[in-house]
Amino acid sequence: MDVAALLTSAGINIAITVVLLSLYSILRKQPSNLNVYFTRRLVSSRRTKRKGSSCFERFVPSPSWILKAWETTEDEILALAGMDAVVFLKIIVFSIRIFCIASVVCLFLVLPVNYFGKQMVHKQIPSESLEVFSIANVREGSEWLWSHCFALYIISCAACALLYFEYKSITKMRLEHITGSLRSPNYFTVLVRAIPLASEESYSDSVGKYFMNYYASCYLAHQMVYRSGTVQKLMSDAEKMYRVLKNVTAEQPKLISCRLCCGAPNSFKMLKEADSVNGNIRYGDLDRDTREKESAAAFVFFKTRYAAIVAAEVLQSANPMLWVTDLAPEPHDVLWSNLWIPYRQLWIRKITILLASLAFMFVFLAPVTLVQGLTHLDQLSHAFPFLRGILKQNFVNQLVTGYLPSVVLMLFLYTVPPTMMLFSKVEGPISRSGRKKSACIKVLYFTIWNVFFVNVLSGSIIGQLSVFTVRQIPRKLAEAVPLQAGFFMTYVLTSGWAGLSCEIVQPVALIWNFMKKIIIRTKEDTSDCTLSFPYHTEVPKLLLFGLIGFICSILSPLILPLLLIYFVLAYLVYRNQIINVYITKYESGGRIWPIVHNTTIFSVVMMQIIALGVFGLKRSPVASGFTIPLLIGTLLFNEYCRQRFSPAFQKVAAEIVIDMDRRDERNGTMEEIYQELMSAYCQLKLTSKDSNKSTDVSHHEDRDCIRDPEALKQGLIHPMLKYSPYLESNKVTLSYLCFFIFQNWN
Amino acid sequence: MDVAALLTSAGINIAITVVLLSLYSILRKQPSNLNVYFTRRLVSSRRTKRKGSSCFERFVPSPSWILKAWETTEDEILALAGMDAVVFLKIIVFSIRIFCIASVVCLFLVLPVNYFGKQMVHKQIPSESLEVFSIANVREGSEWLWSHCFALYIISCAACALLYFEYKSITKMRLEHITGSLRSPNYFTVLVRAIPLASEESYSDSVGKYFMNYYASCYLAHQMVYRSGTVQKLMSDAEKMYRVLKNVTAEQPKLISCRLCCGAPNSFKMLKEADSVNGNIRYGDLDRDTREKESAAAFVFFKTRYAAIVAAEVLQSANPMLWVTDLAPEPHDVLWSNLWIPYRQLWIRKITILLASLAFMFVFLAPVTLVQGLTHLDQLSHAFPFLRGILKQNFVNQLVTGYLPSVVLMLFLYTVPPTMMLFSKVEGPISRSGRKKSACIKVLYFTIWNVFFVNVLSGSIIGQLSVFTVRQIPRKLAEAVPLQAGFFMTYVLTSGWAGLSCEIVQPVALIWNFMKKIIIRTKEDTSDCTLSFPYHTEVPKLLLFGLIGFICSILSPLILPLLLIYFVLAYLVYRNQIINVYITKYESGGRIWPIVHNTTIFSVVMMQIIALGVFGLKRSPVASGFTIPLLIGTLLFNEYCRQRFSPAFQKVAAEIVIDMDRRDERNGTMEEIYQELMSAYCQLKLTSKDSNKSTDVSHHEDRDCIRDPEALKQGLIHPMLKYSPYLESNKVTLSYLCFFIFQNWN
Repeated sequence: MDVAALLTSAGINIAITVVLLSLYSILRKQPSNLNVYFTRRLVSSRRTKRKGSSCFERFVPSPSWILKAWETTEDEILALAGMDAVVFLKIIVFSIRIFCIASVVCLFLVLPVNYFGKQMVHKQIPSESLEVFSIANVREGSEWLWSHCFALYIISCAACALLYFEYKSITKMRLEHITGSLRSPNYFTVLVRAIPLASEESYSDSVGKYFMNYYASCYLAHQMVYRSGTVQKLMSDAEKMYRVLKNVTAEQPKLISCRLCCGAPNSFKMLKEADSVNGNIRYGDLDRDTREKESAAAFVFFKTRYAAIVAAEVLQSANPMLWVTDLAPEPHDVLWSNLWIPYRQLWIRKITILLASLAFMFVFLAPVTLVQGLTHLDQLSHAFPFLRGILKQNFVNQLVTGYLPSVVLMLFLYTVPPTMMLFSKVEGPISRSGRKKSACIKVLYFTIWNVFFVNVLSGSIIGQLSVFTVRQIPRKLAEAVPLQAGFFMTYVLTSGWAGLSCEIVQPVALIWNFMKKIIIRTKEDTSDCTLSFPYHTEVPKLLLFGLIGFICSILSPLILPLLLIYFVLAYLVYRNQIINVYITKYESGGRIWPIVHNTTIFSVVMMQIIALGVFGLKRSPVASGFTIPLLIGTLLFNEYCRQRFSPAFQKVAAEIVIDMDRRDERNGTMEEIYQELMSAYCQLKLTSKDSNKSTDVSHHEDRDCIRDPEALKQGLIHPMLKYSPYLESNKVTLSYLCFFIFQNWN
Repeated sequence: MDVAALLTSAGINIAITVVLLSLYSILRKQPSNLNVYFTRRLVSSRRTKRKGSSCFERFVPSPSWILKAWETTEDEILALAGMDAVVFLKIIVFSIRIFCIASVVCLFLVLPVNYFGKQMVHKQIPSESLEVFSIANVREGSEWLWSHCFALYIISCAACALLYFEYKSITKMRLEHITGSLRSPNYFTVLVRAIPLASEESYSDSVGKYFMNYYASCYLAHQMVYRSGTVQKLMSDAEKMYRVLKNVTAEQPKLISCRLCCGAPNSFKMLKEADSVNGNIRYGDLDRDTREKESAAAFVFFKTRYAAIVAAEVLQSANPMLWVTDLAPEPHDVLWSNLWIPYRQLWIRKITILLASLAFMFVFLAPVTLVQGLTHLDQLSHAFPFLRGILKQNFVNQLVTGYLPSVVLMLFLYTVPPTMMLFSKVEGPISRSGRKKSACIKVLYFTIWNVFFVNVLSGSIIGQLSVFTVRQIPRKLAEAVPLQAGFFMTYVLTSGWAGLSCEIVQPVALIWNFMKKIIIRTKEDTSDCTLSFPYHTEVPKLLLFGLIGFICSILSPLILPLLLIYFVLAYLVYRNQIINVYITKYESGGRIWPIVHNTTIFSVVMMQIIALGVFGLKRSPVASGFTIPLLIGTLLFNEYCRQRFSPAFQKVAAEIVIDMDRRDERNGTMEEIYQELMSAYCQLKLTSKDSNKSTDVSHHEDRDCIRDPEALKQGLIHPMLKYSPYLESNKVTLSYLCFFIFQNWN
């Protein structure tokens, strides 16, 4: 790949980005698109009549949204969208800062050294190969390698320092978040699982007895979790049907069978009514029914936050597989459908999912190899001789090497988040945020493995997996990464720049909205497609770009300005989306940050290992020698941060909750909180579909679920309702296809 | 190695064992050896006058000690030597059981298959190579390999079942141990470290204030830990000396200098007196002095066990590096010299020690390679041609291949436990049992790596570390293990059988006792050399033999009877030693078992992996296919045990302590316990050398320390006191040397 190809690619992507952003600035002014671009305002019911702007103004692109996104302060975002959103934006800010420093160092120090490395005759800039700008152009044993080592030191130290301050400030923010959430019922509540089955008592009686016995002074009440899974429902329906039929045939054969014929056309319909707790129960005893539907899990409420935390953290029973306690998630965060899973299944589920994820990762080698084949055209034309004619054309060549790899990779990558979300759900987390965090980690591992490692090493890894040793890895990476710099640059351009502008335009939601208005002609303006922020896809994306940036920084510094532009754009776009589009349903309190921290440390360490390999290849023992203490220092820094900050993200400190309890007792607000507590966790209201069709979004699990992109992507919901996020994941691809049709037209 | 060599080796070792055991049965009857063989009785002051047996009886070997060791019940041992000893014996019982099963299966099924494997002409038994009895003799693609696979299934399933029941019974025993230790002060006590430094207050005030604030209802008292390290002492002595001299020269130059001259001949002596808290303080302010000597750690006493456990398990402060709480160890178990270590150093210490241990393990490759060279005589004579003449002699050949490797290896191995004990001490554990457990793990890893892996693979591993991949390991092991079976058999004979008989005779203690009586002519009969049981050397030894047994069982079944004899002998010998010799100073409550469990699972998995490799080499895809589900099943079983039992070894369950608290409250014994609590943890009494020369062994840390083999081995104590355990570690070697001299004499 030469400079001209890169510039073509950059030009095309800049054009796409500018066009899409302008389009967005026009589209957002159309009143009809209000429920595409301002769903948050619609949901939060703070919908004020917008000034009717003149017809002319409405069709002129304007940068007002950029100003708005820029001007919103962190406190406003915190108040509006919660701590998770702020932490997400902090990832971008951190990336901008570190890559600013890296750009300055690498462009002014490393790039000239690379460019004038070998005393070769340079061609004209446009037809210069990109390798001329990479470390591949520095000759072996060059005394100028100190500049790379120096840059490595500056970038590593800056990254560690920035990470430290970010971790510190986010920990502080998390503590403030906990201290500030005085009314949150979750700090008073413990989720108890694996309640032992007593022969005489119901689960509810067991729970009451146990906590009255051991936590008499601080136990308030408890609330059972009922089995509500689909399979459960079908099974219990079938069982009741059997019981009814048995009764029918045994006792009053005529009367009931008659009633069955005329009264209820199908038994399941009838049983659904019988099922409803609010309705009348015709068959069977309600008490026995609910008792049978009780699962071995319950929410237990305590009088103080401290008592709840103690109950959650202390080992309850001598048998660690009984009376397992955890601090409850927020009411909206509870994943009700997972609560009934028997606790003793969880470890098997986790292992199974781990193996399934690994299998999925390795099955994915197939498409990645395809992508790899596309970047090496000579191999492709060797394998398919009939393509040789087409591939010789310059435009096709540029298209195939420049775009197709990224597009194909992205196409395949879009199937990953839904799969991982499904995997995470099967694993059995008790909260939606936990599920999202777990999916985020899976997607992250997957992305780093498949996009980075396999792509870089595919030539060597697939064939030679057997003769690959640990010691060879730095050397192999050092050989492969500079050669792949071109691919990473186009990846930043296509997946990064163009992806962001598609994110902001939301083409699928837009088209759906248009179709609904024009074709289906619905009048109602309620927001049917409010989405919560897809952290599990966006965080790995940002971290992957971070990894690429760190690794390429000293090897091939030309990528840094492109990355920097990407992060600045991401800052504006995601701020705008957080302010206007995505709604916040639940909070994890910044639990995503430790993942970000660890991944960034991993990226820095990878950068150092690859640099070590490169210095080895270039025969510079001094530079290698200086890199090793840096590597050790980085690992020690990580360990320190793990000791210093990480427990605060897993547990809640006693002093904090005790102080909160005392404040509440002084203010006399405890009684009120107890009142709220009793109605905070309500499963039956949330899951019964027929009983009440509440329009309150936040209290309606099924509607909530529809709006939840992960539930949609899992295909758990009726296909007609799946429109938006599923298609949305293909939006970038669609826009590409449109673009290519448009290109060929001319 | 052929059968004759094995038989010679076995004959010699049987002779040694029988002679030493007879010697023991005579020596133990001599009244003068009472404080060598009955130290436990002497210490526990239950010394009853033994019947004066007749002169003749005293010099006739008798098996009475075997009967005594056999007849003592588990309950008696539990009462006498505590739970750790019972758990240790359970390791042996488990080994006997599993290797009985393995012997039956392998000797009657696998061994005939091996022996009649190839239709080769068998030589006469004595000159038959040992390989004829191993799986190496089965031809490729043999349909008889199902018998090996079947044996593998039986052994694996039996091991898992036995492990499960042992884990269950030990968990139950641990719970009973906790429930039974009603008076133990450690369940009421929390060790707080990393107390923040307030500018105005002393540490003691901070602790009092903090716990009065947050744990007002259950906080009882606290007690500071004072800095008492040697360096600390020297530094504070020097500082005080400086202060005194400064005062002297500034205020009363004449009077004091005079007093210095005549009153106290050396300043350190004088300051030692000033140091003593019980004595009068001449210079400086006591209050300021003790305050300055306070370290950032304290024992905090609570009113109930439950409160202590809560305080220990809950995260105290928002900064996880402050107010770190742990449940306190037993008073005799406290490692006072480690308590003052600043908490923030611990993670660095741990990492450093980890690296140091790894380095030590790899440096050890040198002697192991030497040993490897000895077993391959041809290589040795190739390297040193002048040895060729000597090595051709049959006796020398047998000696060099049969004994020297084991002896050399053992000689080097005797330096390992003291080193690992030192490493574990530097790591900063707060209890002696924790230190021993940590050393045990290190010695275990070390032994398995150096005795097993390196020995087996040394030919391939050292030269070819770079071209070694994960996939090749089973194959390499499968090739190497059957060839090394001869070495392992001699290892069992020398290190196992002869080692045990040396353990029981305690030659070094015996000689020392003799010298003391005859040469130094001391009359006092007090036991100067009471030892606590060296779990950190004996547990890895047993587990190593277990590993060897599992791995060789189906490959080379001839080793099993030898191992079985070893374990039966070990059962008798260790029982005898526990009943008569070693005293119990502290209890860890069976915390060693999870290590044993994990190592055994590791051994079983290794056995299966090597079997997989062997079946691969022998081209039996069916047997390989059947081994894989077994491997997965074993790993799942291990994970289940980890979930089910392991937390009970790390935490104390709330229900148990609450029930204990209630029982005490009902009985009204709480006040008594509080009284005892106040004086339970006393550092100053234990560390001041001059103030009181208490004869109470259990309350005197320094004397305790002298008797502690690990402290001795670390060389922390005056060399004259080091006699017993340091030399004892060389006892086997010494006995070997004696034996060889004796051999050559004839």
